[in-house]
Amino acid sequence: MLNVTNGKVSVSDLVAYCMRAMLKAGMREEDAQTTADVLVTSDTWGVYTHGTKQLRPLLIHMRDGGLDPLANPQIISEGSSWAHVDGHYAMPPVSAVMAMRTAINKAHQSGIGFSGVYHSSHFGAAGYYAMLAAQSDMIGLAMTNVDPFMTVPGAKGRVLGTNPITYAIPTGKARPVFLDMATSTVAASKVFAAETLGKPIPETWIVDRDGKPSTDPSELLKGGAMQPMAGYKGYGIALLIEILAGVLTGAAFTTDVKTWIIDTDARINQGHAFIVLDPQIMMPIDDFKARMDELVRRIHETPTAPGAQRIYMPGEMEWERRDDALKTGIPLPEDVLLYLRDMGDDWDL
Amino acid sequence: MLNVTNGKVSVSDLVAYCMRAMLKAGMREEDAQTTADVLVTSDTWGVYTHGTKQLRPLLIHMRDGGLDPLANPQIISEGSSWAHVDGHYAMPPVSAVMAMRTAINKAHQSGIGFSGVYHSSHFGAAGYYAMLAAQSDMIGLAMTNVDPFMTVPGAKGRVLGTNPITYAIPTGKARPVFLDMATSTVAASKVFAAETLGKPIPETWIVDRDGKPSTDPSELLKGGAMQPMAGYKGYGIALLIEILAGVLTGAAFTTDVKTWIIDTDARINQGHAFIVLDPQIMMPIDDFKARMDELVRRIHETPTAPGAQRIYMPGEMEWERRDDALKTGIPLPEDVLLYLRDMGDDWDL
Repeated sequence: MLNVTNGKVSVSDLVAYCMRAMLKAGMREEDAQTTADVLVTSDTWGVYTHGTKQLRPLLIHMRDGGLDPLANPQIISEGSSWAHVDGHYAMPPVSAVMAMRTAINKAHQSGIGFSGVYHSSHFGAAGYYAMLAAQSDMIGLAMTNVDPFMTVPGAKGRVLGTNPITYAIPTGKARPVFLDMATSTVAASKVFAAETLGKPIPETWIVDRDGKPSTDPSELLKGGAMQPMAGYKGYGIALLIEILAGVLTGAAFTTDVKTWIIDTDARINQGHAFIVLDPQIMMPIDDFKARMDELVRRIHETPTAPGAQRIYMPGEMEWERRDDALKTGIPLPEDVLLYLRDMGDDWDL
Repeated sequence: MLNVTNGKVSVSDLVAYCMRAMLKAGMREEDAQTTADVLVTSDTWGVYTHGTKQLRPLLIHMRDGGLDPLANPQIISEGSSWAHVDGHYAMPPVSAVMAMRTAINKAHQSGIGFSGVYHSSHFGAAGYYAMLAAQSDMIGLAMTNVDPFMTVPGAKGRVLGTNPITYAIPTGKARPVFLDMATSTVAASKVFAAETLGKPIPETWIVDRDGKPSTDPSELLKGGAMQPMAGYKGYGIALLIEILAGVLTGAAFTTDVKTWIIDTDARINQGHAFIVLDPQIMMPIDDFKARMDELVRRIHETPTAPGAQRIYMPGEMEWERRDDALKTGIPLPEDVLLYLRDMGDDWDL
């Protein structure tokens, strides 16, 4: 049973609960710890769609053969500044953490490092991996391709994934600057939420099955597709991610990427890409951090627009939610609690 | 005099005309050649805002002391996979080409390379530099910070530049995939065009001096600002570019970046950033190109939406315009011809 007090769950309770499920599913303790940290950290940021809610479907994916509980991701080829990692269908956060640490080590040697992963699946919140670099005083970027659920200008149907790009950059006195965004106009979860409420959506969010913009959220699951953010610009960024994470890594791309949450027994072969730059190789790290602090100060001190209380740096809201979560517990939404309880039933927790 | 026939100018005539101006302004022939190629290539793509139209103001910038006609950009510090280049206020395309070639060489050695430029100014169309990598069978990214002309969510006033990001990626049978985009919703030139026509603009394009979205294009130059594309997402991408091109290179950033076209005698200290990945170090280049061709094929063969004739890859329109331009000349718009004639008067061409 998961202990919920005043609608909140403590970080340590949530980690322990998730680990019990993963150990019962046959994973090693170290890998379960890694995966729990990735998912619970996302919950502390308030990014509940990509947090522990995803553990139940990930373990179903594993039970059905799409993932291998005991697989070890492995560097298959590498050079002084790059590596290709075969995930061997390990729990994806395990492969992603290993690959990001590899890119960090490469960048530490040579200023910039790249690592790519193939034979992987859904890795949760990409931002976690970028943050590993920032915690090492480096600039981290993390990207992944995902199953096609987005259209592109001129197309009818689903062409590309809503491929996310994330970065994290250290500062001196402030928290790391931290962005985690999909390349669609909004997350699909917002479309589903509008559908539940029976509300129309802006016409820049989705297209219907004919490729026409639609304000009816129910069209999305009737053969519709998400729209890229900012039209051809979002298309261009999503395509870059498809190439870096899919084409360049040897993973599947576009229509070859299956939907992990539906094709639970399939070897999805998503690809991930990580790029790390090490500022301290290029200038004294204190200089870099002072420059970052100055950047943050200038943005914070900009006058605010009517109705705005303050100007947020990317990631600042997430850090504040995390501070609260570490102090008083995570206010998990009801849908997440439901998923966690169902997972408890699955694994007799 | 520039020879205009049937409203078109041949590439060779335009290169020669631009070179004459630069030689008269005191530049070396090699640097004039480099700069002419950058600007004329942009015109062949149909990106006239960043083509030879900009040579007149660049030469005024040079005449007034903001640029040094005889400066040589110089690698100041470097490692196996990175370099910092002091542009010494050379004509910016000269510094940018040198820095991109440096990043290409680094990537060729180690799989991925980074170079950053400081002491530079307006470098024209960023896409040209990314294309240099694609011409060497590599993946190129080019970015620059620019003077602040864009707001961010919650702010009143100008906070960041409309910092562009570009990439170019080689294929086998197709043309390189190629994107050059600013991080604002649209280019400022579209706002000015609407103002000239007396037409209202969508409310996602600009904010007025109070930071409120405005449909009145004349508000932009009355203390207004461009809006980032897709709200916080465009803000996040523009900020990443500001950090990679400005903070990490040692260049000026945000409000320290002056406006080259106004502060013509100022040392602008814009920064540029280039990242190159070499696919052939990671897999046989023919495999990579075949995978890129397959990606292009899948996108091209997607059914089209109502009203769409075809689905374009990023850059495809630009390549087709360039083919036409190389065959039949460049259909330079009247405003470009006017700038070129004025430049001819300046330098007695």
